[in-house]
Amino acid sequence: MAMDFPIPDGYRVLESETVAAVLAEIPKLVAVLGGVPGDWSVREVSDGNMNRVFLVEGPSGGVAAKQALPWIRVVEDWKFPISRIDFEVAALRQTAAFAPGRVPQVLAYVPALGLAVLELLKPHIVLREGLVAGRVYPKLADQVGDFLALSLYRGSDFALDTETKKALLARFAGNAHLCATTEDVVFTGPYDAGPLNRWTSPQLDDDVRALHGDTEAKLAAAELKWRFRTATESLIHGDLHTGSFMVTESDIRAIDFEWALYGPMGFDIGALIGNLLLAWISQAGHAEERSEDRRPVTDWLEQAIPALWERFVAGFLDLAERETGGGQFPAALFPERAPVTAALSRFLDHVWRDAVGFAGSKMIRRLVGISHVADFEAIADPDLRAGRERIALRLARSLTVERDRYSDPVALVRAVNAALR
Amino acid sequence: MAMDFPIPDGYRVLESETVAAVLAEIPKLVAVLGGVPGDWSVREVSDGNMNRVFLVEGPSGGVAAKQALPWIRVVEDWKFPISRIDFEVAALRQTAAFAPGRVPQVLAYVPALGLAVLELLKPHIVLREGLVAGRVYPKLADQVGDFLALSLYRGSDFALDTETKKALLARFAGNAHLCATTEDVVFTGPYDAGPLNRWTSPQLDDDVRALHGDTEAKLAAAELKWRFRTATESLIHGDLHTGSFMVTESDIRAIDFEWALYGPMGFDIGALIGNLLLAWISQAGHAEERSEDRRPVTDWLEQAIPALWERFVAGFLDLAERETGGGQFPAALFPERAPVTAALSRFLDHVWRDAVGFAGSKMIRRLVGISHVADFEAIADPDLRAGRERIALRLARSLTVERDRYSDPVALVRAVNAALR
Repeated sequence: MAMDFPIPDGYRVLESETVAAVLAEIPKLVAVLGGVPGDWSVREVSDGNMNRVFLVEGPSGGVAAKQALPWIRVVEDWKFPISRIDFEVAALRQTAAFAPGRVPQVLAYVPALGLAVLELLKPHIVLREGLVAGRVYPKLADQVGDFLALSLYRGSDFALDTETKKALLARFAGNAHLCATTEDVVFTGPYDAGPLNRWTSPQLDDDVRALHGDTEAKLAAAELKWRFRTATESLIHGDLHTGSFMVTESDIRAIDFEWALYGPMGFDIGALIGNLLLAWISQAGHAEERSEDRRPVTDWLEQAIPALWERFVAGFLDLAERETGGGQFPAALFPERAPVTAALSRFLDHVWRDAVGFAGSKMIRRLVGISHVADFEAIADPDLRAGRERIALRLARSLTVERDRYSDPVALVRAVNAALR
Repeated sequence: MAMDFPIPDGYRVLESETVAAVLAEIPKLVAVLGGVPGDWSVREVSDGNMNRVFLVEGPSGGVAAKQALPWIRVVEDWKFPISRIDFEVAALRQTAAFAPGRVPQVLAYVPALGLAVLELLKPHIVLREGLVAGRVYPKLADQVGDFLALSLYRGSDFALDTETKKALLARFAGNAHLCATTEDVVFTGPYDAGPLNRWTSPQLDDDVRALHGDTEAKLAAAELKWRFRTATESLIHGDLHTGSFMVTESDIRAIDFEWALYGPMGFDIGALIGNLLLAWISQAGHAEERSEDRRPVTDWLEQAIPALWERFVAGFLDLAERETGGGQFPAALFPERAPVTAALSRFLDHVWRDAVGFAGSKMIRRLVGISHVADFEAIADPDLRAGRERIALRLARSLTVERDRYSDPVALVRAVNAALR
């Protein structure tokens, strides 16, 4: 699909040498950085697939400058809309209102340059890097559970009146090209023989051939794709994997909101759980290759995944008692709370079911699709890597096709342990 | 909720005496009507709850001029947005593209007056009037089934690529106030002791009191409301009852699209089936009161409801084979058609399940809510009327609470017959 996306007048690709001059024109940023532009250090740290990112530090503080390119950074002939940064900024601001302190603050936004200047997160690292290194994050389950409860509840029809929700729905419907891309790379591409797919070959060739002929898995993906396209349950991040969190031992922040959309709550939760499962399953590969004991991190992940879900549920039900602006359960109709809580629990069971399926989809796409993850890529020995990937792929397929087998996080954890045995 | 809605500059409420002068300024309408304005007859036929409608006829032809008022026509202190006519015009045009020949053509639109001038439907009458009079419409099931298949399939992610669908989603998200009103009057109001509700009293007082204390029914309504708010499956009419079709023996046209939204397909189908059930259940009241044999119409309805659904399913599956622009089941992934058809059938089972619930919701709201229907109102004897209404109310409650009992239209028809015995 060749598409032309508009490029703003005055747009130019920024370089380490030119970014400081742009920031210097914005008094708020000068105040944050301190000193004069000549004092500032600029470091390009473009790390994700999509954008340029510069870390700029001055005598008083730092900022992260993120520029959307007219293409995908790692695939330059893949044109991509600069407007994605507009949706990212809108989603960051909205999510900051829903879940204060859990996203970097937007310090400045320069639409003509596709440039968002964000609070510098320091000494945070990308969660995925921490997991690959074998670190544990004892507070993460509670923090992420709270974050998901706040952002997903407050963006939904439970919290928002219909006029407010539909205004947000319309706003983010404009991010359609990125949604279509997600649909392609998550729910279609990995099941196809498309030229951009890759996998550990020849070790996984038979597995991938089987997947390409697996009608049941493709139908499960199509059903999940339909949910992604039609279930406008909340403002979701849209790509909430372990590379979309910046963490320290005591803090988590969600980043990279350019994929934001109104979609099913289970998509964000599933993306995160699926990527935590990839981290978990890959640990034995790191352990063997680096002669390290990785039991602390696998023990932690084993309890963190259920803990994260339980915290999300508790937070969600708590918000549902206090923030009833969506009029979903009017007090005049429901003078008692117990039946409402029971109904919400049934709803959350459905979110869990979605999350299980989406977790599987997101795992599959990272194993045999266009875009892979460091959890496995960092395992240099291809046989060792492929062995772990095969375990992950089989579990993932089951998560999409046999969702009902995973009725709760305990059942999921049990299945992971069985697969790893 | 007191809200101020914008009123366009130059807006004025039209009267029979002033409408011709407005139309005379639009050459296309002058050509349709023929002659000079002095030759035109104007008749106000405002019949629905919401708007003013004038039928204007000239030597060559006629038009229907529909004006949105800044309030609800039958409740003048209930302010209502004139913008609804903008969504009606957009939905009429879009539906004309999806299902040619099944909606009146938009001949002119004057936003400043909230005025849509439509093709005059003649000798059509409102379907509900025909049903109350005991008429049968042998072609209706096929025609409406086809209309629903075309409009609901073609507005969905099965047919539309994501960019096109989300642009329509955003367009119709602006109709939020009318959506919120539907949510209130269908899913909340009837279960509340709100002052605008009415019912045949005192005959139904106990039934209504029971409903107001019926937590299970209220939870079912809340679940259906959630579907209405979040399931953006297609561009739906939003109020597709038997008063929203103009019919002859050989033609059907859907009208009154001001409630249009992206919503669950089952909402339109359920609205229609629910209103056909009201027509069916009320027939014995007309028969007794007017000493008429109403068996022809009840026999026809008994087969028309399943026939309508079967035709919808057949048309939907046929479109799904030929119009695959939504990429929901890419041919590269699904070289064989059988699994796709099976998946679509499962989807349609879910639409049916939604439709059953929405049918019940729409029946309840017409029996004990703010807005009633001629099917029962035309039964003058309150005892006779209440007897039929009670049968309808009990069935309707079961449709919302026990949806799984009505796995297909045959099961539904059997239940109606049992209720009428």
